[in-house]
Amino acid sequence: MKLATLPNRTRDGALCVVSRDLTRCVSAAPIAATLQSALERWQQVEPALRDLAARLDTRGDEGEPFNPSGALAPLPRAWQWLDGSAYESHSDLMHKVFKMSPVASERPLMYQGISDTFLNSTQDVPLPSEEDGIDFEGEFGVIVDEVPLGVTPEQALGHIRLVVQINDWSLRTFAPIEMKTGFGWIHAKPPCSVAPVAVTPDELGEHWRNSRVALPLDVWWNGERFGRVDGYPMAFGFDQLVAHAARTRRLVAGTIIGSGTVSNKNYREVGSSCIAERRGIEMLDKGEAVTRYMRFGDRVRMEATLPDGAAVFGPIDQKVVKAG
Amino acid sequence: MKLATLPNRTRDGALCVVSRDLTRCVSAAPIAATLQSALERWQQVEPALRDLAARLDTRGDEGEPFNPSGALAPLPRAWQWLDGSAYESHSDLMHKVFKMSPVASERPLMYQGISDTFLNSTQDVPLPSEEDGIDFEGEFGVIVDEVPLGVTPEQALGHIRLVVQINDWSLRTFAPIEMKTGFGWIHAKPPCSVAPVAVTPDELGEHWRNSRVALPLDVWWNGERFGRVDGYPMAFGFDQLVAHAARTRRLVAGTIIGSGTVSNKNYREVGSSCIAERRGIEMLDKGEAVTRYMRFGDRVRMEATLPDGAAVFGPIDQKVVKAG
Repeated sequence: MKLATLPNRTRDGALCVVSRDLTRCVSAAPIAATLQSALERWQQVEPALRDLAARLDTRGDEGEPFNPSGALAPLPRAWQWLDGSAYESHSDLMHKVFKMSPVASERPLMYQGISDTFLNSTQDVPLPSEEDGIDFEGEFGVIVDEVPLGVTPEQALGHIRLVVQINDWSLRTFAPIEMKTGFGWIHAKPPCSVAPVAVTPDELGEHWRNSRVALPLDVWWNGERFGRVDGYPMAFGFDQLVAHAARTRRLVAGTIIGSGTVSNKNYREVGSSCIAERRGIEMLDKGEAVTRYMRFGDRVRMEATLPDGAAVFGPIDQKVVKAG
Repeated sequence: MKLATLPNRTRDGALCVVSRDLTRCVSAAPIAATLQSALERWQQVEPALRDLAARLDTRGDEGEPFNPSGALAPLPRAWQWLDGSAYESHSDLMHKVFKMSPVASERPLMYQGISDTFLNSTQDVPLPSEEDGIDFEGEFGVIVDEVPLGVTPEQALGHIRLVVQINDWSLRTFAPIEMKTGFGWIHAKPPCSVAPVAVTPDELGEHWRNSRVALPLDVWWNGERFGRVDGYPMAFGFDQLVAHAARTRRLVAGTIIGSGTVSNKNYREVGSSCIAERRGIEMLDKGEAVTRYMRFGDRVRMEATLPDGAAVFGPIDQKVVKAG
């Protein structure tokens, strides 16, 4: 089942069910007005939502045309956004060249980020200055229903209701300063963007494996291919990330948990999902970072598709602009 | 003006205006159903709310009895909770004995914490284990209306609409582990508790000075006085904390910004607002920490009052219990 949120002049938008091929949609209003409200009573609403989805996918005349670029983020705001850093190849490199924390072997890295705003997939991204080291971070995420405190990874897996694709915007100039405090990211992490369609894990078929998204994430920067990086090799699966998050707090329904920048060990071949990683590779290989961070007017496009090219979440395709 | 939120079977409760002496209240429903909705259009609703407050304070027969211990947290949930650490005496000590970050001279320390749940002032505090180093942290906080990205401290001051009193529950066992990652606190920071009444800064009179709360915070642990610490000596005022928070993000209306544990240089005389600080002092003075962290069944009470003993925010008085 695929879900999206359409604009309707409210902050949370209107929930709709989207066809598998992202061409048609139907309002879910009779079942749940918003995705947040659906997540708060998922077990009750899921069967009716799946009925809608099945009708949409089997009957060509159901629903209305769906325009992914007109959708809001699936959750335009959420009560909680916890982002992990689960790819060892990325954090090992960041550790080597920028002294960032390595992925600890026993526990995932995770921070709490701004969740009152998630940008939609096509809106301009307003940021204060080109001097801040503007960077994208392509990643995957999951949305849970309410997760009790202290769940095991096995239990956590049962609470993963939706999978999403995220661009976690980062301002790299602030990262080493905030890293050093130990208090986490405030300046370094403005609001994220989210691809238009959230999908239940079963939509990924064999590409949802060990609580990981086994699909490549294609990233283009100003029309040039930047990376095609496999989402699978997380040191911790989303089941473990959710259980980690719930160690001393219950997770409210609608909590979004991120994977961190998708990265593969063979980054020299497959590229990267953020500029910082490419700069790190350049520092290793050439002694200095030559790729600049983004400038106003730059675009980034990100999309994970099935091996046959079929759409999953829809693309993120945005331009960075000066805020104010 | 003083505001509180009464239970009404919704997650956000019902906004009411409270008399200065916290004995009576009147529903604010005709003006704003919830505190969040009031903050989203503060300039429109403030005059009408202040009219209600004035009637309540001048006419003895207005309103209904107000029971502070029955109120919810002023915002039972908020879109954003950013907690500073603005008392140098506290962080210098934590730095000395626990290798925590010192208050940087040029920029405040700040992390984003869980905001989907704020416990009310009397409810039991469910925590997973006595082995986690259960600690209280008495602090003050402010609630803002929408703050544009990039405001100056002077502009930020104009967005500070309410002042609150907070117990930022902490699990100390996780602190050094999470500190080291640089990613901030997840396990170390379960939901906070908030005193029942939020007050406009003018209610503090001369005790709102330089964007600081110049009032002592009384803390009792199991009925024994633990601290009576002045809120004034923040290295950064709330105006600066709000401006810091808004450096690369607009702040959504209803964002709560905390001061960090209230602490004074003469902590040996006035005591502390958290156990970790007392343990730090013991390590300096006796070579080892002798005070244990909290056990299930322990109570903590916190209250800031005016010099004549008059109530301001109402007390926080809670028991720690085993979760689950």
